[in-house]
Amino acid sequence: MRATYIYAAGDIRVADAPDPTIVEPTDALVQVTRACVCGSDLHPYHSAPQTPGGTSIGHELIGVITDTGAEVKTLKKGDFVIAPFAISCGVCEFCRAGLQTSCANGGFWNDANLGTAGCQAEAVRVPLADGTLVKVPGVDPTTADESLLASLLTLSDVYGTGWHAAHQAGVTTGDTVAVIGDGAVGLLAVLSAKQLGAERIILMGRHQTRTDLGREYGATDVVAERGQDGINTVLELTKGGAGKVLEAVGHLPAYEQAVGVVRPGGVISRVGVPQYEDGPIGWSFFGKNTTLTGGPAPVRAYIEQLLPGVLDGRVNPGKVFDRTVSIEDTSLGYAAMDAREALKVMIKP
Amino acid sequence: MRATYIYAAGDIRVADAPDPTIVEPTDALVQVTRACVCGSDLHPYHSAPQTPGGTSIGHELIGVITDTGAEVKTLKKGDFVIAPFAISCGVCEFCRAGLQTSCANGGFWNDANLGTAGCQAEAVRVPLADGTLVKVPGVDPTTADESLLASLLTLSDVYGTGWHAAHQAGVTTGDTVAVIGDGAVGLLAVLSAKQLGAERIILMGRHQTRTDLGREYGATDVVAERGQDGINTVLELTKGGAGKVLEAVGHLPAYEQAVGVVRPGGVISRVGVPQYEDGPIGWSFFGKNTTLTGGPAPVRAYIEQLLPGVLDGRVNPGKVFDRTVSIEDTSLGYAAMDAREALKVMIKP
Repeated sequence: MRATYIYAAGDIRVADAPDPTIVEPTDALVQVTRACVCGSDLHPYHSAPQTPGGTSIGHELIGVITDTGAEVKTLKKGDFVIAPFAISCGVCEFCRAGLQTSCANGGFWNDANLGTAGCQAEAVRVPLADGTLVKVPGVDPTTADESLLASLLTLSDVYGTGWHAAHQAGVTTGDTVAVIGDGAVGLLAVLSAKQLGAERIILMGRHQTRTDLGREYGATDVVAERGQDGINTVLELTKGGAGKVLEAVGHLPAYEQAVGVVRPGGVISRVGVPQYEDGPIGWSFFGKNTTLTGGPAPVRAYIEQLLPGVLDGRVNPGKVFDRTVSIEDTSLGYAAMDAREALKVMIKP
Repeated sequence: MRATYIYAAGDIRVADAPDPTIVEPTDALVQVTRACVCGSDLHPYHSAPQTPGGTSIGHELIGVITDTGAEVKTLKKGDFVIAPFAISCGVCEFCRAGLQTSCANGGFWNDANLGTAGCQAEAVRVPLADGTLVKVPGVDPTTADESLLASLLTLSDVYGTGWHAAHQAGVTTGDTVAVIGDGAVGLLAVLSAKQLGAERIILMGRHQTRTDLGREYGATDVVAERGQDGINTVLELTKGGAGKVLEAVGHLPAYEQAVGVVRPGGVISRVGVPQYEDGPIGWSFFGKNTTLTGGPAPVRAYIEQLLPGVLDGRVNPGKVFDRTVSIEDTSLGYAAMDAREALKVMIKP
């Protein structure tokens, strides 16, 4: 089969790889229907060390089960499934608490402990299949509308991650919410905040095609300024700050912006993987009784809840995809996202 | 009257000061019955710059009202009151939300905006008296038991601050809680966690007379090791971390310890004023979906709830006081706390 590897910063190539096989009796094999490139894939795209053999990459997919191990109970060959970006057993303390990203037995894609590969590929081996995969009922991926496939694919990561931001912040009816970042996760955090009842949603971003989609998803205000200017604008709009701030970028200036715009007693919920270790949590943060929450989204916990809205078309999170490439052109997808020519790129194996 | 000033690090002196007077019609004047030295007073005691005229200091007191301004409605001369460490109007958005430390009209003791002095003194002017002060019903401070006065005094700061730590962490029945710090706030965080139903309370501290009081307040385990050793011990005791961690110190190693012992999906609640601006909030924190909360405790919000237990003797938070000095000896009180010879020092004007 063909699969995507990263060999160094900026060096993405598609190569032949052995077809995946069942290793553990709890495994399933999945033929990938659609995969995609994540904003977080751009971090290694910027900084990966030279690796002569390449490193397998990708963590979002929908696909069809082609084989299952002897102990897989809830899934069978032919099932159309969503694969979250974390692999989880479904039965440990953390899975039962809805924190599948901390599963005691699980892990991630391209994870040495689990022996997984990345999933920008034609097929993948999925460990702990019963816990990890969610079957999509009543959809035939060979005939389904492209827009439905796109929305289903967002449930593997970006929609669930935007939802996690809003959910962890406790967004509820009447809230004023600031969303930092107009990438796919930020836009879907806007959609999620709207679904959870936010009254005012201020989107901080400066790419108009993206913020236009943000408005379609429910943003009531767009603030394009950055740094202190952006903070001042939000403080004016909200007369003192937003009670809930969803940070969907992961770079330190975005976190600093969050600290600047949060209202006393408010919550900053981060879902962008922080590209920094230390950040301001001293008086500027503490003095306002700020709460900081968030983390890698346990999207598995949210799929059943979010799936009906996707299936009946009430929400269209798949609109974040604005380009599709064949798997042979995956490197062009990375380049387009890196250059911000594309918001989010789908890969069609 | 006599009042306490700090002139430089380590230089505390008591001097003559003008008697306070009513300035605003919402003011009250209070004759101080008891004041005390706070662990947070030791921060300026270690680092205050040279100030020839001295800086007024102290923020915890109980006392008797001697005069009220024309607009004070709920209090009168002779009332015995608790004064929280923050001055608050009681009517703004933040006061109504129980976040009096962010009061839109309030402030603190020794606050240039409000014109307040510190309250390690014989008397103080209290702005926004209706919002700030809480009357203690049925207690005559001239005849009350010393132990009751001590417990009432803790409601001005340390008990409410320990309570804030546990409350913000969401401590509830059956929880496993780690408390970092065996100062007065840490010990009262133990008491608060116990009152809120925690099943297991691990106190991290190494002064046995203090940790013994912690056990009396409800600690089930004491961990004396610091740094990675202390973290490892808590991780072993809890099989992977405590769900709620209350940080009652304010120095960076205490916060780092909190990050080390918190369970995935858990909460760190800080009430020690952070003596650092940047701290680790990267993958070590984010990867576990850790929540960080806390801040300056709005003790005003908790006094009505905590007062009955103090008045009927169900709890004895005043046991954290282990020394009393006259106001003339306030500097000895600071020195004793700084040398850890005293846990918390009461001042008797």
